[in-house]
Amino acid sequence: MSISAAIVGVTGYTGLELLRLLSQHPFITISHIYAHQHAGKALLEIFPHCVSYVEKLPETIELFQPDTPPQVDVVFLALPHAQSWHFVESVLKKGIKIIDLSADFRLKKAHLYPQYYGEAHPVPDLLSKACYGLPELYREKLVHSSFCANPGCYSTAAILALYPLAKSHKLSSSIVIDAKSGVSGAGKALKETSLFCEVNEYLSPYSTFSHRHVPEIEQELGTTVFFSPHLVPMSRGILCSVYLDNTYNFSLDQLLSMYKTTYKEEPFIYASDSRQVSTKWVVGSNHCAISLHIFQEAKKIVIFSAIDNLLKGASGQAIQNMNIMFGFPETTGLPLIARLP
Amino acid sequence: MSISAAIVGVTGYTGLELLRLLSQHPFITISHIYAHQHAGKALLEIFPHCVSYVEKLPETIELFQPDTPPQVDVVFLALPHAQSWHFVESVLKKGIKIIDLSADFRLKKAHLYPQYYGEAHPVPDLLSKACYGLPELYREKLVHSSFCANPGCYSTAAILALYPLAKSHKLSSSIVIDAKSGVSGAGKALKETSLFCEVNEYLSPYSTFSHRHVPEIEQELGTTVFFSPHLVPMSRGILCSVYLDNTYNFSLDQLLSMYKTTYKEEPFIYASDSRQVSTKWVVGSNHCAISLHIFQEAKKIVIFSAIDNLLKGASGQAIQNMNIMFGFPETTGLPLIARLP
Amino acid sequence: MSISAAIVGVTGYTGLELLRLLSQHPFITISHIYAHQHAGKALLEIFPHCVSYVEKLPETIELFQPDTPPQVDVVFLALPHAQSWHFVESVLKKGIKIIDLSADFRLKKAHLYPQYYGEAHPVPDLLSKACYGLPELYREKLVHSSFCANPGCYSTAAILALYPLAKSHKLSSSIVIDAKSGVSGAGKALKETSLFCEVNEYLSPYSTFSHRHVPEIEQELGTTVFFSPHLVPMSRGILCSVYLDNTYNFSLDQLLSMYKTTYKEEPFIYASDSRQVSTKWVVGSNHCAISLHIFQEAKKIVIFSAIDNLLKGASGQAIQNMNIMFGFPETTGLPLIARLP
Amino acid sequence: MSISAAIVGVTGYTGLELLRLLSQHPFITISHIYAHQHAGKALLEIFPHCVSYVEKLPETIELFQPDTPPQVDVVFLALPHAQSWHFVESVLKKGIKIIDLSADFRLKKAHLYPQYYGEAHPVPDLLSKACYGLPELYREKLVHSSFCANPGCYSTAAILALYPLAKSHKLSSSIVIDAKSGVSGAGKALKETSLFCEVNEYLSPYSTFSHRHVPEIEQELGTTVFFSPHLVPMSRGILCSVYLDNTYNFSLDQLLSMYKTTYKEEPFIYASDSRQVSTKWVVGSNHCAISLHIFQEAKKIVIFSAIDNLLKGASGQAIQNMNIMFGFPETTGLPLIARLP
Repeated sequence: MSISAAIVGVTGYTGLELLRLLSQHPFITISHIYAHQHAGKALLEIFPHCVSYVEKLPETIELFQPDTPPQVDVVFLALPHAQSWHFVESVLKKGIKIIDLSADFRLKKAHLYPQYYGEAHPVPDLLSKACYGLPELYREKLVHSSFCANPGCYSTAAILALYPLAKSHKLSSSIVIDAKSGVSGAGKALKETSLFCEVNEYLSPYSTFSHRHVPEIEQELGTTVFFSPHLVPMSRGILCSVYLDNTYNFSLDQLLSMYKTTYKEEPFIYASDSRQVSTKWVVGSNHCAISLHIFQEAKKIVIFSAIDNLLKGASGQAIQNMNIMFGFPETTGLPLIARLP
Repeated sequence: MSISAAIVGVTGYTGLELLRLLSQHPFITISHIYAHQHAGKALLEIFPHCVSYVEKLPETIELFQPDTPPQVDVVFLALPHAQSWHFVESVLKKGIKIIDLSADFRLKKAHLYPQYYGEAHPVPDLLSKACYGLPELYREKLVHSSFCANPGCYSTAAILALYPLAKSHKLSSSIVIDAKSGVSGAGKALKETSLFCEVNEYLSPYSTFSHRHVPEIEQELGTTVFFSPHLVPMSRGILCSVYLDNTYNFSLDQLLSMYKTTYKEEPFIYASDSRQVSTKWVVGSNHCAISLHIFQEAKKIVIFSAIDNLLKGASGQAIQNMNIMFGFPETTGLPLIARLP
Repeated sequence: MSISAAIVGVTGYTGLELLRLLSQHPFITISHIYAHQHAGKALLEIFPHCVSYVEKLPETIELFQPDTPPQVDVVFLALPHAQSWHFVESVLKKGIKIIDLSADFRLKKAHLYPQYYGEAHPVPDLLSKACYGLPELYREKLVHSSFCANPGCYSTAAILALYPLAKSHKLSSSIVIDAKSGVSGAGKALKETSLFCEVNEYLSPYSTFSHRHVPEIEQELGTTVFFSPHLVPMSRGILCSVYLDNTYNFSLDQLLSMYKTTYKEEPFIYASDSRQVSTKWVVGSNHCAISLHIFQEAKKIVIFSAIDNLLKGASGQAIQNMNIMFGFPETTGLPLIARLP
Repeated sequence: MSISAAIVGVTGYTGLELLRLLSQHPFITISHIYAHQHAGKALLEIFPHCVSYVEKLPETIELFQPDTPPQVDVVFLALPHAQSWHFVESVLKKGIKIIDLSADFRLKKAHLYPQYYGEAHPVPDLLSKACYGLPELYREKLVHSSFCANPGCYSTAAILALYPLAKSHKLSSSIVIDAKSGVSGAGKALKETSLFCEVNEYLSPYSTFSHRHVPEIEQELGTTVFFSPHLVPMSRGILCSVYLDNTYNFSLDQLLSMYKTTYKEEPFIYASDSRQVSTKWVVGSNHCAISLHIFQEAKKIVIFSAIDNLLKGASGQAIQNMNIMFGFPETTGLPLIARLP
């Protein structure tokens, strides 16, 4: 019951997290690892901490050649946007399953790509072939899919916070999502705004109402959201603070019951009315913690959702999707408990 | 033109910041410093970094005796709430001016104290004697006041973000203020939630819609706000992200013009439509940076306001108030430029 | 092949780390969890992030009664010093194995306790019964031991850095160990020096040449060391920078060969001459990374050793010891790869 | 008594710190600011936090043309190494004083440049014209100098820690300096090792015994040192932990007396035997705190020295030098008290 996997973009943060998790996954052999910048180098030269797995892992980082993909069961594409879309077709044709962690196939409407990513989509016909990889929404479809578009980190936290309401068509309008993320969400690219001294001890909003994850969130929730992200001086973790009108006059019990019902069978979702909300309860695990609050006098609902952006927000979710696509138990190889401190 | 000052509660973060700033203030002599816990100890034993000012500062930390206050021109009360209200009357009677950094005299309505602070106010008749110390709103009154209730840190950032709209009676309803603060806002009290390992690398909401600064903000803005604070892993800095409907259909130019007009003469307020918003531009200075954004399609206004919680949010503002109350130029002794990094 | 375990002091950082690791250990059932402060509370009330393991874990935190210990195979004592020594005898008598994470049985010479811990040891006769739990030194003894004194965090990093030289009687005199630790090493106790604002952005030496781990290090290395610890603003991680004279004129090859030989079979030790030294390659894993450097002209050896203080420095090592004491494969349930970032 | 100054390299961390401090200096007009990358842009576009000083500061960032330097009294060169050495001659010829914050003129022996900086010095004859800008050693010379080579950050902390012993010819051999620095010491250059996620929560040694500041330290102390720097996850601050043999059998009183005598008149040095050593007592000020310890039994001296690397370690010291070179009181415009927290 073992399958072989390749990781393209292994030196970025999501690629590295895939490497860490897959090297401990009981049903996976990592056969090939790729990275443009470090191609030809030994894995241990770049990542000396992999020493305990060195016999189970490829010795060398390779240059990915999309036309001659490796003979593996699944390829993880852990790349910046506007790269995967050139690779996917040739890989799928070989019968290899793809889990794409980039944004290239998340949006169903091709016209959104020029608006949000500055380029027309080169293979728009493939958009419909990708299954949006949020298991809590698309598990059944994922079982039969060979091409998964793994969601954005913010999108995961925001959609899961509101999905039970959206599913019941009880979403009020004018939803404000004030989102806060650790810095690893920005990846390992060399830019001034990711330098330690520019981030440490500071808090900054950015891309207010215009972030690239907005169309993804709106696509899945079927409504407009006001999404306002902020950069927080920490390496991991996302918290979405969601504010909406209690248009349908839910009581806390009703709301909690709706969420608990929707997420009843979900191994990685924990919905409660706890006031102990913090990214600390999820960082290091593949969980999404959701906390529900109703302010009757104010006629407001407040929902907090917290994830580890590199786990449930990226590589953990990618492995959850892989588990589903290959029929493994869904939690295999995924951490179920946060690391504190 | 020199006056003498006393600091009560000098070992807390706001007391210490007062000590730092006042020791460099050209018109001030610090005559007495008080702290319950360290009374009797030498200043240099507790704060060795004061060595350069040792000849200008009191040698010893004393125990404050409210019935026999020191013969000074002004007393700064840098205490937790529910302490100042026992001290104020006897001090004022001696003709000494008071700047109270606690919450004890900020609220005009006595009945709010049991609700928000868990105790009935012991001297409610004094509430009307205190001037709320937000110079941008009450400068004229402060000139003639001898008793200043210095605002809360969150309150300062939130009120300044919305005051021009409130003053013009153009505040829409349903204002959401998602606020984020560094940890020094919690003071130096020993509690588990302030431990390094409980805060570092984590982000946590708390006191959603029920924080003690809510009644203060509502009192000054004259409207209900939905105030939702979060604890951020950094020592200093507050950012308020304010979301409201653009009910009056402001253009960005109109809004910006309204703010620039209101704050035209203000030495510490900088309103702009800059997308470069961050606490990094204010930490270390007494500034409040306000950034205005209009989303016409969404009919939303978003306002960011950023301060250093220990400066404009506490001790800096206290000194600004003192400068006004004693007729000194308002910026005397206050940092006008942020420290980066 | 499953055994039952109890954790005493589950709410501290080492207790919590034991809980996290043991809950995922394939051969362990956690039967009882104890904590003085939170006795009687539900586990999920204190640690909501344990929700995925709730069916496998005790529902309630209990008060530990040493005279009537639980019927388990092993008890982990994750307590401050001067507590375990009252518990051990009664527990051992029931045939229960003990892994004590405190300092109470690490030192073989009873007279060192008054000097370093301020109290005479109440059961000095038991000192010889405890096996010092550093598997790289005492594996054979641990196999037959039922009472393990788990080493200090600094001690682990310092001893492993120098053990191959000590074993070969090639330790020069005048060894300086400049050690740096993250804040979780100080535990969860409420003290001013552990507050976020007192630690964040600052670096402080403490207990120079007088730290409690000194006698432990000297006991195992058989020589005097100059041990100088520093507190670093991070949650996890220890780095020892060790400076000693190259008295025996080792070449780098000789030194490296000595270390590789000594640690050849060790699953958690990685000795190299890498210049890529950092706690980042070990935090989140049970590894100790050792990096060797020779400066021929200077006649100096420099050795860096890095560990995660809560894993190889405490709870990870405790589980490694348990694996040995119960005949499980030594790496069972222990992370073999660091978490980056 | 006002002079005009230019800052070359204003957008780096030392340039920006010069801008912050000089804009508040009572005797300085900043006439020109230069930066290669942002030449032509408005100051407020790059540094919006300078708004309060906008009337006192140049409106635009210019491109520095060494052949036609500005008509100012002093030029601060806040540049990476290997740039200043091309500029200095033409500027000095115009009778403009220079304070060079780079390494280009710190070393007296030209042959060290190829070894430590990879390039031969293009104007070695100028080396003797530069005065090494450590006021505590060269104040008299600085008074008459028009060309100051401002010391390195580590060098400042290390030299000041040992200078009284060196001056008395009582330095033992085999001095180990374990140094720890915040990240701003690496400047604002885009490199992977300065990214937030690569630094945060990690501690790393680097350039052991081979750092570029070694020849500077050895030049001033007249002896060999073993200098071992480490990168610490904080923005500012340097701590040197210095270990040496107590060859001359100093008592603590003798040592303390020697240091107090040497530094008696120094406004920015505070030598003590305090055990409260931390960068927290100096960050934000121009102080160097030195703490002396003797371990008689061990025959060891341990000295800790702490500075803010951007103040006493760079820009603060540059202004101290300027004050001396222009006859201003030495502490003018320099912070004398640390910022806590």
